[in-house]
Amino acid sequence: MTQAFNSIGIVGKYMNHDALQQMQSDLADLAHHLQSKDISVWVEQNTAEHAHLKGFNTVPLADIGARVDMVIVMGGDGTMLSVARALAQNPVPLVGINRGRFGFLTDLRAEEMLSSIDHILAGDFQRETRMFFSAQVFRQNKLLHAGVAMNDVVVKSCVRLLEFEVHIDGKFLQKQRADGLIVSTPTGTTAYSLSAGGPILHPNVEAIALVPVSPHTLSNRPIAVSSASKIEVTVVQADDAQVSFDGQIQLDMEQGDKVVIQRAQQMITLLHPLNYCYFDMLRNKLNWS
Amino acid sequence: MTQAFNSIGIVGKYMNHDALQQMQSDLADLAHHLQSKDISVWVEQNTAEHAHLKGFNTVPLADIGARVDMVIVMGGDGTMLSVARALAQNPVPLVGINRGRFGFLTDLRAEEMLSSIDHILAGDFQRETRMFFSAQVFRQNKLLHAGVAMNDVVVKSCVRLLEFEVHIDGKFLQKQRADGLIVSTPTGTTAYSLSAGGPILHPNVEAIALVPVSPHTLSNRPIAVSSASKIEVTVVQADDAQVSFDGQIQLDMEQGDKVVIQRAQQMITLLHPLNYCYFDMLRNKLNWS
Amino acid sequence: MTQAFNSIGIVGKYMNHDALQQMQSDLADLAHHLQSKDISVWVEQNTAEHAHLKGFNTVPLADIGARVDMVIVMGGDGTMLSVARALAQNPVPLVGINRGRFGFLTDLRAEEMLSSIDHILAGDFQRETRMFFSAQVFRQNKLLHAGVAMNDVVVKSCVRLLEFEVHIDGKFLQKQRADGLIVSTPTGTTAYSLSAGGPILHPNVEAIALVPVSPHTLSNRPIAVSSASKIEVTVVQADDAQVSFDGQIQLDMEQGDKVVIQRAQQMITLLHPLNYCYFDMLRNKLNWS
Amino acid sequence: MTQAFNSIGIVGKYMNHDALQQMQSDLADLAHHLQSKDISVWVEQNTAEHAHLKGFNTVPLADIGARVDMVIVMGGDGTMLSVARALAQNPVPLVGINRGRFGFLTDLRAEEMLSSIDHILAGDFQRETRMFFSAQVFRQNKLLHAGVAMNDVVVKSCVRLLEFEVHIDGKFLQKQRADGLIVSTPTGTTAYSLSAGGPILHPNVEAIALVPVSPHTLSNRPIAVSSASKIEVTVVQADDAQVSFDGQIQLDMEQGDKVVIQRAQQMITLLHPLNYCYFDMLRNKLNWS
Repeated sequence: MTQAFNSIGIVGKYMNHDALQQMQSDLADLAHHLQSKDISVWVEQNTAEHAHLKGFNTVPLADIGARVDMVIVMGGDGTMLSVARALAQNPVPLVGINRGRFGFLTDLRAEEMLSSIDHILAGDFQRETRMFFSAQVFRQNKLLHAGVAMNDVVVKSCVRLLEFEVHIDGKFLQKQRADGLIVSTPTGTTAYSLSAGGPILHPNVEAIALVPVSPHTLSNRPIAVSSASKIEVTVVQADDAQVSFDGQIQLDMEQGDKVVIQRAQQMITLLHPLNYCYFDMLRNKLNWS
Repeated sequence: MTQAFNSIGIVGKYMNHDALQQMQSDLADLAHHLQSKDISVWVEQNTAEHAHLKGFNTVPLADIGARVDMVIVMGGDGTMLSVARALAQNPVPLVGINRGRFGFLTDLRAEEMLSSIDHILAGDFQRETRMFFSAQVFRQNKLLHAGVAMNDVVVKSCVRLLEFEVHIDGKFLQKQRADGLIVSTPTGTTAYSLSAGGPILHPNVEAIALVPVSPHTLSNRPIAVSSASKIEVTVVQADDAQVSFDGQIQLDMEQGDKVVIQRAQQMITLLHPLNYCYFDMLRNKLNWS
Repeated sequence: MTQAFNSIGIVGKYMNHDALQQMQSDLADLAHHLQSKDISVWVEQNTAEHAHLKGFNTVPLADIGARVDMVIVMGGDGTMLSVARALAQNPVPLVGINRGRFGFLTDLRAEEMLSSIDHILAGDFQRETRMFFSAQVFRQNKLLHAGVAMNDVVVKSCVRLLEFEVHIDGKFLQKQRADGLIVSTPTGTTAYSLSAGGPILHPNVEAIALVPVSPHTLSNRPIAVSSASKIEVTVVQADDAQVSFDGQIQLDMEQGDKVVIQRAQQMITLLHPLNYCYFDMLRNKLNWS
Repeated sequence: MTQAFNSIGIVGKYMNHDALQQMQSDLADLAHHLQSKDISVWVEQNTAEHAHLKGFNTVPLADIGARVDMVIVMGGDGTMLSVARALAQNPVPLVGINRGRFGFLTDLRAEEMLSSIDHILAGDFQRETRMFFSAQVFRQNKLLHAGVAMNDVVVKSCVRLLEFEVHIDGKFLQKQRADGLIVSTPTGTTAYSLSAGGPILHPNVEAIALVPVSPHTLSNRPIAVSSASKIEVTVVQADDAQVSFDGQIQLDMEQGDKVVIQRAQQMITLLHPLNYCYFDMLRNKLNWS
C-alpha cells in the first residue's frame, strides 16, 4: 500500500551560526524539490523566518499537524522531540534529516536527502510508531500543568535533597532520596536515562522505565513497568524541585505536588529508509563497532 | 470462579542439616493437612525419601505435572526454579512456601502455611503467569541440547576472554567481549541479572533482558527486547565457555556453538495470597524500606 | 601520651521538633557533666539559644576553634561537616555523638555518651586525621569566592546541560557533558559520590575522587588522582550552573567560571572510641551484614 | 642525568598469522638498529625462534632481567604484563612498542619506533615507576603458590556461587557472594577492573582497588585501600574457584584456601616518550574525545 503525501510540512533548526547558511540552502533545496513534484509545501513559521525561505505557505508549529500529511524535520534529535510534541494532537508521520553524524531519531543524511525523500515519497519506507507520554502536574489536587513528552518526564532537584514517592497504578512502589527520577519511554532510554544508568528498551517493548538519578539507597535500581501503567511521582521534600518534559520544558514543583504520567492514546509515527535498522543505529551511536 | 484442587503435589528441599528436622515436620504437617481434606497427595520421590515421609503416593519430579492440579514447593527460590522447569510440559499452578525471610518466588511463610494453603484451597488467591525460556544449543547446526529456564540462560567464560555475537530475530545486534551475557526473563531480572547491573523488569512486561557481565566496551549496556524475539548468542572465541540454565544446569560450549533462546509457548502459573504485591516484595527483598 | 582537654566546645543541632526536647536534655547533661569535671565549657551560640542552655560561656561557631581544645558535636554527619568547615583555621579535635543509628562521622551513641566521653577524656581514643578541600571560584581570573569542604565540591547544573573541562595539575583531563562533577575527599566518598557511582576511598588513601553525575559519554568513569593534585573545573556551557561545598553552601557559576580545588594544608582531627573500626562502620551503614 | 643503555633485551609477540611477517621485519629492524649503535642485543628465546631472528644472543625470558639494562617489548599490553612479571626480580626499565592503536602500556608506535628509541637512548624520556603485587596462595596454612601480578589478582568462580571473606591488615572487611573479586593495582584499573565497574586510579595514587564482580548485595561497591595494605581473600564456599594473576596464570582454589596480596618491594619502571601524558592516553583509549 502506497500512502500519498500531497501536503508536506518542513521544520528546520540550525544549531549554530556556522551551520545556518548550510541549513538555509538545504531547506530551500528541499522545499523547491517537493514543490516541483506538485506537493503542497508548508514551512513552519520560525523556520521560514530564520532560513529566509520565501514563496511558500507558512504555518505555526502548533498547527502544522492539522495541515499536512507528513512533516520533514531538519536538525537534531532535540528538534524532533519538540516537533513530535507539537504533533501530539495530529500525529502525522515524521521524517528526520541530520547533517553529519545521524541521531537516534534523525536517520536521513542531509548529504543525500533528496534521493532519500524520493524513496519515501515512492512508498519505500519503514513505518514505526512510538509511544509518548501525557502528563499532568497537580498541586493540592488542582491541575497545574498538562504536557506531553516523547523521551522522558523528569522530576529533579537543583540542590541535593529530593525526596519523593512513587506509585504504580495506585500501588506504592517506593519512597526515595535521590537527585531525581527519570520516567522514560523506550525512545527516551537512549537519551538522559542511559546516562543515569538506565537500560535500553527497544522501541517495540511495551514498557516505561523508571530510572533514579544518584539514589541515596544503593539498591534503588532502574525498573521497567508495563506501558499501560499509571505512574505517580509525589514530591515529599525538596528545596527546589522541578519537573521537565524532554528536558525542554521546566516547571517548578513544591512539596506535595504530584506528576501523573501515562502513555498517550495517540502514537508518534516515524518513517525510516528501507535499510534502517535500530540495532545498526545503536552500534553506531554508542561506538560499539 | 473457584478452581478445584483435587490432587496436590509436594516438593521440599532442605538447605542444611539444621533445617532438615524442621522441614520434615513441616512437610508431614502439610501432607496430613491436605489428606484430611480428602485431597489426593503426591509427594515427590526425593522429597519423600529425605523427609522420611511415608504413607503417601510418590512420583518422580519429571512426572509430577501430569499427576496433580497444583504443586506446593517448600524451600527457596532455587527449588522453585527447578520445579518450574520440571513442570514445563504440564505447567500446573505452583505455590511456594519459605521458612524465615520469604523469597522472590516463595511468598508463603512456613509459620502460617496451613492457614495460607486453606485460603488458596478456598479460591482466595491471585493467579499470576510468568514466561519462561525454551533454549537450544547448536554445534555445527546440530542440536546439542535443549532446555528450559525460568530465570535466565547465561553464556559465560571461566577464564577471562569470551567473545560472542548476538542476533535478535536474525538481525545483528553486536559482537562483544565480556565475562558473559545473561539473557533473562522478567522473573530472572531480580536474580543474577540484577547483580550484573541489569534493570528490574516487572513480571508483566513483555520483554527479555540482555545483560552483559563486565563488558570490555563500557558503552555495552543492558538492553530489553520484545518477549517475542528470538535471541541467538554465538561463541566467537573462548577458552572455556559454558551455557547455564537458571544457574543450575551447565553445558560446555565450543567456538562456533550457538544458543537460541525464545520464550516457551507455555507459561508458569504462580498462586499468591490475596495480599501479595510485587512492589512490597521488591522493597522487602532489596532493603528499600 | 594523654592529651589534656581543659576547654571543650559543644555544638548541637536538632533535626526536627520531636527530637528537640531530647536534644535539649542531652546537651544539658553533657555540659553539666563536663563542668563537673572542672572543664571549661563553651557552648556554640545558636546551640545555646535553641537548647535554652543557660549558665555556660557561649561563642559563635566561627570562633569556637580558637577557644577550646576539643569540640563535641551532637547531631548527624551534616552537622559534623559544617562544624569541621568552621574549624578549618583552628582544627581542634572533633567528637561526634549521634542519637539512634550512628553516622559515617558521628560514632558515639547518645545513649551512652557520658561514659564514652569519659573514656576519651581519659585518653582512651583513636585519633584520626582527615584531609579537607580548600577551593576558590574564579570569574575572569578574579577570585569570586573561597571556601572549604570536608566531603566534596560539586559543580552541577539545575537543568540538563552542563559542559565543563577538567585539568589536573595544569594538564587537560577531559571535556564532559553531564549533570555535574563531584570532586570528593576520601571522607566524602561514602556520601553523595557513592550515590553517583563513585568508589569508596579509605580515609588513609592519599587521593581525590572525580565522579561524574550522569555523564553523556558512557565511558566517562570515576577517577582518583593524587591528593597532592590541583583540580580545575571550568564551566564551558551551562544554563544554570552551581558549585556547592559539602552540599551546604551554593554559589551560581557562569560560563567561563573556574573552580580550583586542592587539599588544605591543615587536617581535621576526629577522635574515635578505641573499638572504632572503619570497616565495621561501612558494613553497618551500607547494610552489608 | 643520562642513563647508559649498553645492553638491551628484545621481546616480541605476534598476535595472529597476518601480523607475523610484519612483526618479524620490525624485530629485525630494531635489533640491527641497536646493534649498529654498539649496543649489546639480547633477544628473548621464543621471540628469536618465532621471528627467525638469527645472529643475536638469545636468553630465556626468566633470565633477561639479569642480562640487560632495558627491555624493549613489541606487542600489546598483555605481552608487557608477562614481561613485567618476568622482570620482577630484576626490574630493569621497560619500553613498549605497539602496531596500530597504542595500548595502555605500549606507547611507542611501531611505525616510528626507530626514531622513538633513539630519543630514549639519548636520554629524552619520562621515567615512571609502577607498583606490582606479590601474592601467595595458602591451603591449610601451607604455601601452595607464590606469584606476581602487575594488573590484578582475581578470585573467581566459574559457576555462579562464590562466597569469600576479605580482611585488610587483619581486620574483617566483609563476606561477599559474587562472581568474584578483583584486587587491582592502579595499573590494572584500566583493564578488567574497569569492565567490572571499578574506578580508574592514576598510577601515582598509592592505593589498591578491590572490585567485586556482580556482587549479590547491591551495596557492595568498589573500595580503594592504602597500597601498604595486606589483602587477604579467603574462599568460604565455591564449587569451582580459581585465582588468576593478570588473567594469564590460573590456579584452582578450594574451600578454605586463602590468597594474600601485597605490593611487592620492587617497582616496575616504564620509559615513556617525552610527550607522553597519562590523561591523553585515557582519552584516546576510552574514546572520550
